[in-house]
Amino acid sequence: MSGPRRDPAVSEILLRVNYSEVDPMRVAYHARYVVWLDMARTEHLRRTGVSYRELEEGGLLLAVAEVHLRYRRPARYDDLVRVGCWVRDLASRRIVFGYAIEHAEDGRLLATASTTLIPLDRSMTPRRLPEDLARRLVAIADPVRI
Amino acid sequence: MSGPRRDPAVSEILLRVNYSEVDPMRVAYHARYVVWLDMARTEHLRRTGVSYRELEEGGLLLAVAEVHLRYRRPARYDDLVRVGCWVRDLASRRIVFGYAIEHAEDGRLLATASTTLIPLDRSMTPRRLPEDLARRLVAIADPVRI
Amino acid sequence: MSGPRRDPAVSEILLRVNYSEVDPMRVAYHARYVVWLDMARTEHLRRTGVSYRELEEGGLLLAVAEVHLRYRRPARYDDLVRVGCWVRDLASRRIVFGYAIEHAEDGRLLATASTTLIPLDRSMTPRRLPEDLARRLVAIADPVRI
Amino acid sequence: MSGPRRDPAVSEILLRVNYSEVDPMRVAYHARYVVWLDMARTEHLRRTGVSYRELEEGGLLLAVAEVHLRYRRPARYDDLVRVGCWVRDLASRRIVFGYAIEHAEDGRLLATASTTLIPLDRSMTPRRLPEDLARRLVAIADPVRI
Repeated sequence: MSGPRRDPAVSEILLRVNYSEVDPMRVAYHARYVVWLDMARTEHLRRTGVSYRELEEGGLLLAVAEVHLRYRRPARYDDLVRVGCWVRDLASRRIVFGYAIEHAEDGRLLATASTTLIPLDRSMTPRRLPEDLARRLVAIADPVRI
Repeated sequence: MSGPRRDPAVSEILLRVNYSEVDPMRVAYHARYVVWLDMARTEHLRRTGVSYRELEEGGLLLAVAEVHLRYRRPARYDDLVRVGCWVRDLASRRIVFGYAIEHAEDGRLLATASTTLIPLDRSMTPRRLPEDLARRLVAIADPVRI
Repeated sequence: MSGPRRDPAVSEILLRVNYSEVDPMRVAYHARYVVWLDMARTEHLRRTGVSYRELEEGGLLLAVAEVHLRYRRPARYDDLVRVGCWVRDLASRRIVFGYAIEHAEDGRLLATASTTLIPLDRSMTPRRLPEDLARRLVAIADPVRI
Repeated sequence: MSGPRRDPAVSEILLRVNYSEVDPMRVAYHARYVVWLDMARTEHLRRTGVSYRELEEGGLLLAVAEVHLRYRRPARYDDLVRVGCWVRDLASRRIVFGYAIEHAEDGRLLATASTTLIPLDRSMTPRRLPEDLARRLVAIADPVRI
């Protein structure tokens, strides 16, 4: 439905703006975008071969430490929206994801965002990102280098 | 703010309809009412002397098995709304809560509801409601009988 | 992705349970199901050839007057869920939709639901359902009869 | 309940973290904080003497153009949380609000945030902030200067 992937480093999801997400201005309420980022990030992580559900079951939590969103144009009720997600920066104790939210039909940019995630263990204590996961995240962006 | 409690069996909360809850008709989106019921039920349970958080920490989950909502008049953006909650029926393996949602300022009825909750243990298996909790729930409604 | 449509009268959507929808029991929070019903109903209406967005732009609102949900099994985090929606009863001033929510992979029934919707005009006054829309809704369920 | 206002420039709300807001980590899901900011901002605007509902009815929309949130400590299920909101910067075509989210009982800082809002007219076109509203917003922060 989303056509050929334009950049292997970017994972994309498509979603339809539902009535529950729309405010009196008939546009998607701004807090919903934060959920859309989560949905796109979940699919990006799945491409490593291990879903976030499996990571959590294995004892690795990724807690959101920072969210930054810039809204450029509104997403209207019933619009089809594309959310792209990629790894912008990766360190042993932090992953920064970048996002672009576009109107799916005309490609216009609706918003850009970044979120910083911190690896934690089950007791909510910061820990290092497992090397294997880091390697797989890099491999999505740059398959030939691995 | 809510004046004298009109019926000791009924717990009441007040809430202000936020922009995030309002749809293009400028009224509270219908799914939000289900959250309001949860907020009122949480405060009703707190009046037993043991909060739902403490119940869960002690190994008792209350899972929602049924929700029934009738919407009569819309709650508008920024309206102050009162949600009343009481125990309608209590059995060893089921609690039915009743609810009335009113406009806080003019008292008009906005919606009525009921929810059925099932006691579960940590492994999500049905169990009997602890007698002590049942007794405390009855005592709220009928303090002299206990 | 959902395979052949099993019953032309039923519209189906697929959704992935997101982290934002999951509660401490690691299952989808019960109020989210009400939003899933809306998403499925929106797609069912779209099959009439006129989307709900277009109906509203044309002056017809469909207000939810009643919701009834029975939860049978939990939907877990990251599960793929199928929501089926159909017209259960149609009258000049009321549409009753039926719903079945199933686990998409193993087909187990997670919940059943019904919602009653009332046609309103822009001033929020009840009006008759346009005959053309009623006819199109019937045609989905029973294409040969039309 | 919130004691004496510590700073007249800051509006404060208190809220109880509800089950619907909590994720499998048993802490408030990060997107909910964006709604809490909206609730606090709404109360701050109300202190100008004109609620946001009245502003919108009068033709002034305030659209969110940017959100920045830093999460420091989690808000746990059933915790009481205080959200403070103030005007951080005011220009003819932009209001920047600052926020501090604290645990209400022990005062620990849970998160800090800022949001940038843009005045629009009903057709969603940028317009100047009405001088009267600007003056009233300044007066909250610095009553003697007005």
